[in-house]
Parts: sequence; structure tokens; C-alpha cells
Amino acid sequence: MRIAVDAMGGDYAPKEIIEGALLARSQYGIEVLLVGDRHVISAYLLQHHPQIASQIEIVPAEGQIDMHEEPLDGLRRKPKSSIAVSMNLVKKKQADAVISAGHTGAAMAAALLRLGRLPGIDRPAIGALLPTQIPHKPVLVLDVGANIDCRPKFLEQFAMMGLLYSHYALGVAEPKLGLLNIGEEPSKGNDLAVRVHQSLYDHPNISFAGNAEGRDVMKGEFDVIVCDGFVGNVLLKFAEGLGQVLIKVLRDELTTDWRAMLGAWLLKPNLKRIKARLDADEYGGALLLGVAGICVISHGSSNAQSIANGIRVAKDAVDNNVLERIRTQIEAKTSVPAVDVPQE
Amino acid sequence: MRIAVDAMGGDYAPKEIIEGALLARSQYGIEVLLVGDRHVISAYLLQHHPQIASQIEIVPAEGQIDMHEEPLDGLRRKPKSSIAVSMNLVKKKQADAVISAGHTGAAMAAALLRLGRLPGIDRPAIGALLPTQIPHKPVLVLDVGANIDCRPKFLEQFAMMGLLYSHYALGVAEPKLGLLNIGEEPSKGNDLAVRVHQSLYDHPNISFAGNAEGRDVMKGEFDVIVCDGFVGNVLLKFAEGLGQVLIKVLRDELTTDWRAMLGAWLLKPNLKRIKARLDADEYGGALLLGVAGICVISHGSSNAQSIANGIRVAKDAVDNNVLERIRTQIEAKTSVPAVDVPQE
Repeated sequence: MRIAVDAMGGDYAPKEIIEGALLARSQYGIEVLLVGDRHVISAYLLQHHPQIASQIEIVPAEGQIDMHEEPLDGLRRKPKSSIAVSMNLVKKKQADAVISAGHTGAAMAAALLRLGRLPGIDRPAIGALLPTQIPHKPVLVLDVGANIDCRPKFLEQFAMMGLLYSHYALGVAEPKLGLLNIGEEPSKGNDLAVRVHQSLYDHPNISFAGNAEGRDVMKGEFDVIVCDGFVGNVLLKFAEGLGQVLIKVLRDELTTDWRAMLGAWLLKPNLKRIKARLDADEYGGALLLGVAGICVISHGSSNAQSIANGIRVAKDAVDNNVLERIRTQIEAKTSVPAVDVPQE
Repeated sequence: MRIAVDAMGGDYAPKEIIEGALLARSQYGIEVLLVGDRHVISAYLLQHHPQIASQIEIVPAEGQIDMHEEPLDGLRRKPKSSIAVSMNLVKKKQADAVISAGHTGAAMAAALLRLGRLPGIDRPAIGALLPTQIPHKPVLVLDVGANIDCRPKFLEQFAMMGLLYSHYALGVAEPKLGLLNIGEEPSKGNDLAVRVHQSLYDHPNISFAGNAEGRDVMKGEFDVIVCDGFVGNVLLKFAEGLGQVLIKVLRDELTTDWRAMLGAWLLKPNLKRIKARLDADEYGGALLLGVAGICVISHGSSNAQSIANGIRVAKDAVDNNVLERIRTQIEAKTSVPAVDVPQE
């Protein structure tokens, strides 16, 4: 397996991106293609990893799309940018997947332009894995930012893709699907939510467990939760921010006196596990679902471990042939695996 | 000061509601009017608080609006329900404020019908205080559920009311206002967010600090954040759910072995403070802003402490004459106090 890594994208690129790629390479036994400025990458490898530098393939690219650039405009002006070249590798089947911590909009636009949409999908969605209170049972929330104004059928498609991903890549036997909403009753919510509730309920190939409220997201009852990209993005960023808030508050409150410091020292491994269990960054990246290729989009602030985690997400998707599953199942219009829940 | 307490509303009514009212009564030196079934309330008081039972005023009401009832329909059929009678007390100036942990929709409808809107306010909003990482510096988020589909001018009015409340009731000298959105740039967001950004920016009497992303909510930078009631409700319930998730995870992870249990014991006061700092329930209730009376809406699941906290919120609003401030300032169309932040 070969993963194209956009080595120039992200706040801590290229250092953390390269380190993350090397980490994933040694941990998962995959091949990484570092895409970006040949001189910069090669100099970094020679200086910090001289023993293996010659084994790592660098794919040259010129520049990257800056955070303030308009995606399509940036891609037009920089056709050899690291994200464009990375996508080309997937398109030409020289890589099985791509990961980028750069400009999210540019990664999406490049994926759409270079790889195109899967048949039957109107709008690709970004699906993020959020931790729940149940260990090792994340919830897939989509869309978290690709589609701001949605029509009901987009959310139907998000539901299909989410269920297939949950089943095939995450191994959930019968994933439970929820619609993010402000109450349990079918009549609750804005116009979009009411219409989507009805169409998911009526959908012949989707088993729908009903509305999921904000408080249900981290409870671990649902495996897949669909929403429009505006609400999803607000929620995702709120959840991400919490990790930092938690660390700040722990730091404030666990260093007040010797008793607290002793307690904190005794609990060090436990607190570490708590952080890992609640850290939205644990899964290292969101999947762009609905394009004809496996694309993982990581946070701009990703460090090496996040990138390695993100590569793991990409690897799982490739290993489990998620793309082909979505393609065939949506074309065949067969039921997607899901738990059958009695409807109200 | 006299606060009307809907003793029949809430999952743990009347017990926790009465206990909360008595707690607030002794803590804040206010008078509470317990509204509901005279026999039930009186029996409870005589059994559990015989020494003070005769000092507590009970205002009789018949029945309450059930959670599954349609608000307007319920109010029509039960004009003497506890929430309707409570609102009447405020209308007739026999109470300075009302608090209910019952049906939120019914409380809102009763407030609109009995008290009416303030002049210049199209839609009242529910404003919730969420904790931030900075101690004693909550952020007021509105609307969190009263208005699902919003027009830009509604959010302008939410902003005005929020700034005035933050300044006069919470004592923030120059409250910083944000618009909940999915990016910092003015062009980001759905149609509503883009239009509201522009109108807040152009507003002669509002000083607007720009977009607030999900991750900014708990950072403590903003004092007031406006959004539509759908997004706000999802966010609020997600934040509320977190408290429970945190407790569950702590319970799982801090009892794994003797070392962890010793550490947890040493940290008991610290963990308690951490919970208090991050608990969305700490403020005990949300304010219904924009109706001609002070109304606090508490969670259905409120316990006595939450109700007492909610009464504290009502008391602060009454003490600081928030209603009159909003009324006069909106009529006078003068600037609302806010920090002047350079715009991009």
C-alpha cells in the first residue's frame, strides 16, 4: 500500500507531516510518498533520518495553496501544488490514498477536480470520527464542513456512505444511524431536518434509528450521525476545542498544592487515558466520502501523531475496500447494513 | 423580591423544585411563591419542612402541560396550569420573575401570551450561560432553541439583548460579541450567517468582534455569541451531555487500581472544582430574553441545586433591572456597551 502525503500542508509542515508519515510507515508497514518541495524534504530527511532517507520516495511539487487562497483559484494558479500532485498520484493509481493537513477547501476541490464524484453521489461529505464515552466506539459525524447549504437528498447520501463506511471500515455489524436534531419527535427541527427525517424513514435501503440530539453524540448509542456541514462544523470544532479546555482546566486545578500534585502524579497514566478517550484528535483526520478515491483531511494543527493516526484511517479504508463497497452498493441500490430499530 | 416557582414542572417535580426554591430562599433572602397543586405542595412542606411550612406561600394551580403536549393547545386546554398561573403572577406584578423546569415550549408560549414581547423585539430568544475555560466568565449563547428558522434581524436583536444582559446583569464592562460561524472570514457560513455578519458589522449601535467558531465558545474570549436556535440547541445539548460523559469516563478510569483510587481520593476537591468549572448546568437555567418579564427556563432534569442556581439567575436579572434596560435602550436606539474591536 502506498499513501501520498502532502508534506507541505499544515501549520507544522513539513516537519510534523514528514515525522508522522515515517511513524505510520514503520508502524503499519506501508509505503509513503512525500509530496512537496524536493530540496526541503530531502534536506530534512538527510539531517534527521539519514539511515532511511534513501528509502523514502519524494514526489516533487511546486508550492502549496495558502490558507487565505480561494480553492479553485489557487488550484488553477498552482497546478503543480503539493495537494494537486498528491491527488494526481491517486488518480493515476500510483497511490492508494492521500492525506493532507493543508487547506481543506483546496483538498476538497482538488479531489473533485482530479478524482471526481462517485456515481450517485451529488455532494461528497467530510466525515469525522468523534470519540464517545464508550472506549473504542467512535461516532462518524457527517458532513462536518463540505456542504453548508444542503438539500435532503444530500443527507440521504451522507447516510448511505456513513453506514457503509461504519460497517466495512470500522467493522460495526449493524451501524445505528441518527439525524442530528433538536428533539426526538419527527416534527422537530428546521425545515431540512423535518424533510430528511421523513425521507430517511421512508428510504427503502436505509434503516434509520431516528433523531439524535446534541447530548446523544458522545453517548455512544449512534454509530453514524448525519447533519448539514454548518451544524456539523460548529459541533466538530466545539468538540476539538474541548480537549484544549480540558487540559487547561486540569493544569489549573491539579497543581494547586502538594496534595493535588501527588494525586495528579499517581493518576498520570489514568489522566493520559482519559485524554486519549475524549480527544477528538485521536482519529487524526476526517474522510472525504463520495469522491472516487480515499482522501483523509487532517487538521491544520496536526502533529506527527495526528498525521500517523490519519494515515491509519486511510489505510483502514483502503484495506477494507470502502470505495468499491460504496460504489457498488449505491449503484445496485441494495440495503445498507444497519440495525433495524422500531420507528415511532 | 418575589419569585414565582412552577413547582409542578420538571422530571423531579415537585420535590427537587420545592427544595431548590427553599434553598434559594434561605441563600438569597428572597420570597418564593410555589405554584401548583396546593395539597401536594402543602403535604410536602409539612412533612419535610414543618418549621417553615406556614411561611411559604402556595399559589394554587390545576395540572401542568405534559412534555408531549403541543404548547398552545396545552395552554388553551389548561388555563390554570402551573406555568400559566406562574406567568399571570408576573403579569399582575405579584411576582418579579418566574422559573420553570417544565415544558420549554409551553413556558415560552405562556410568556408570549401572558406577558407579550418587548417593543422592538420580533422574536424572544433563549439565552444560555455556558462555562468557559476562564473561571467565573461564562459565555451567553443565544438563541438555544426558541427560534429554529431565523431571519437576520432576529439575530441582530439577539445581539442587542445579549450585550445588554451581559453588561447589566453579568457586569461585563465591554462585552465582546461574536457570531457563531464556521470560519473567521466574513464570507464564511450559510446564507444566514453571511447576512448577519454584514448587518452586525454595519449596525450603528452594536460593536461586533466578528465570527466565533465552535472552538471559540469555551475559550472565554467572547461574552455573547449569537446563532439560530437550531445550531444553538445542538451545541447546548452537546455541552450538557459532556458533563455526564466526563463523569462516566472519570469513574471508569479513576478506579482501575489502588494507585488510581488513592490519587482520586487526594484529588477529590480538585475534581469537584473541575466538574463545577465545566458543568453546563452550573448556571441552572436559561433566560427567555425579549418578553416583558423575567423568565428563567431550567432543564427538565433539574435538581434542587440547579433550581436554586436558576433562581439566582432570575434574581440577578431583577436586581439589575435588565428588563427596563433592554426596553429603554432598544427604544432609544442608542449604542449598547461593547468592546470596540478592529474589523478585518
